[in-house]
Amino acid sequence: MSGVVAADGSILHHSGRHLHANDGPGGVIRTVVSAARTSLGGIARSSLPVGIAVAAQVDPRTGTVVHAPNLGWRDVPLARRLSEELGAPVAVVNDARAATIAEWKYGAGVGATDLFLLILGTGVGGSAVMGGQLLEGATHAAGEVGHMPIIAGGRRCHCPNWGCLEAYVGGWAIAERAREAVRADPENGAALVARADGAPQITARTVFEAYRAGDLLAGRIVRETERFLADGVVGIVNAFNPSVLVMAGGLVAGMPEFLPIVESAIRARCQPSAAGARVVAARLGEDAALVGAGIVARDYLAPP
Amino acid sequence: MSGVVAADGSILHHSGRHLHANDGPGGVIRTVVSAARTSLGGIARSSLPVGIAVAAQVDPRTGTVVHAPNLGWRDVPLARRLSEELGAPVAVVNDARAATIAEWKYGAGVGATDLFLLILGTGVGGSAVMGGQLLEGATHAAGEVGHMPIIAGGRRCHCPNWGCLEAYVGGWAIAERAREAVRADPENGAALVARADGAPQITARTVFEAYRAGDLLAGRIVRETERFLADGVVGIVNAFNPSVLVMAGGLVAGMPEFLPIVESAIRARCQPSAAGARVVAARLGEDAALVGAGIVARDYLAPP
Repeated sequence: MSGVVAADGSILHHSGRHLHANDGPGGVIRTVVSAARTSLGGIARSSLPVGIAVAAQVDPRTGTVVHAPNLGWRDVPLARRLSEELGAPVAVVNDARAATIAEWKYGAGVGATDLFLLILGTGVGGSAVMGGQLLEGATHAAGEVGHMPIIAGGRRCHCPNWGCLEAYVGGWAIAERAREAVRADPENGAALVARADGAPQITARTVFEAYRAGDLLAGRIVRETERFLADGVVGIVNAFNPSVLVMAGGLVAGMPEFLPIVESAIRARCQPSAAGARVVAARLGEDAALVGAGIVARDYLAPP
Repeated sequence: MSGVVAADGSILHHSGRHLHANDGPGGVIRTVVSAARTSLGGIARSSLPVGIAVAAQVDPRTGTVVHAPNLGWRDVPLARRLSEELGAPVAVVNDARAATIAEWKYGAGVGATDLFLLILGTGVGGSAVMGGQLLEGATHAAGEVGHMPIIAGGRRCHCPNWGCLEAYVGGWAIAERAREAVRADPENGAALVARADGAPQITARTVFEAYRAGDLLAGRIVRETERFLADGVVGIVNAFNPSVLVMAGGLVAGMPEFLPIVESAIRARCQPSAAGARVVAARLGEDAALVGAGIVARDYLAPP
């Protein structure tokens, strides 16, 4: 997704463009350059700063993609290469951090000095603003709360650990738990299997849909997910002590009921000092990372 | 404990003084004033800045003790009242934060920009320096990782939650687990009970001593504690992404074997981006909070 972000955080131009990981850095950069040229076509000054959000560990000072598991990249100097192509300054930022900056400056977290953005999607990610500054960490990876264990020695995660929050409430994990449940209880699982057109096709989305249609087994999965999520959030809020927890991602969009449940758990079970944190839904949806990349370009690059 | 801390972090004068919580704020303040006068007796300038570390939620800007469960205090303007008595500027800081500042400036974390101090004592506490700044949180409570659940719905904690890290590896929890174990297995528990002079007197210290003496049941408790601790630390390091994890507190002093175990867990099970964190033992021992209070007085109060 690419676009032009105005100084007030609004999106002036917007376009979707598909990237193919197996194009390698060269191919991806060509696509990005072409998208940026399209987006910038109507803008008089082509040397406007460019921000790009990537699902990767990024060194924001150099604009290097340190490690992008989805793209299979390691140590790609993305900012430098894009800057050479575009003839404009380029900032590179991790996508969760970009979304956090966007929600903080123009979305659900406006005015907060200490906020945590929790992203519930296929994976579980996070990022924090603490004391009015984005929390980076030693290798720009702070906030990876999807990989805090909530059940020591529990379910295998996609990361090198077991029992992580993501291994229970990430989209892939909800699907996996549901597939196990229908295997263990074929009778109550039959409707969900039929809806998904076969057990292997069960996703978090089909579980949520079945739950809304009154399916018992799907209801059980959703209830368990709520409990795991509440435990994870209690840990996050105790550990980071935000004033606002912003919840983002496809699973939150699909199941807004998670918000009051999470807020109740914070009130009842967090340390008294931390238990006042408010829980709010992200406001910028899928545009958050784009807006955040624009903000980073605006604020962290020298004016053109 | 009170003392005079030199500009280089060394302790010039040192004295222990017992405080009694049921003296109330007035009595405690009189004791602190008397201790400070003793410590400052040999110093020419009595208006030297005074720092005080308290096991409490503190607002460091106003020097107010917001909540001190051990003392039963709420909203005590400690800095103001001490300052009136002493005729000197006074800074108040949470004890874990004071210890963190001390280890960062003069102890095991010198040179680190992103460090986490994990305190394993009767309770489990923590505090972080991120990007070269102490992490405060919305209500100055960031870093309370003792209350991150590691077993969702698990053991009752002393906080309002279940399954917290502290409920497994805090000193009180180790003792509790050991008492349950000797009840469940009286035969293998007999030696530990005898050593402690009765099951109710079992403490983490007696468990560690029995383990060193080759006691099987104590060995089981220690091994389990290691596993729970490793899980907790993997979560902390993934969430905060420090370059250095400093381990402090009586349990670490009593069981330095925890350090390499924790470091192995970080290497093997953290996210690749975070897995490089070094694990080091705290260096300043019980003086850390005193030194930290001195640093806060030096750095954050106007020179006298």
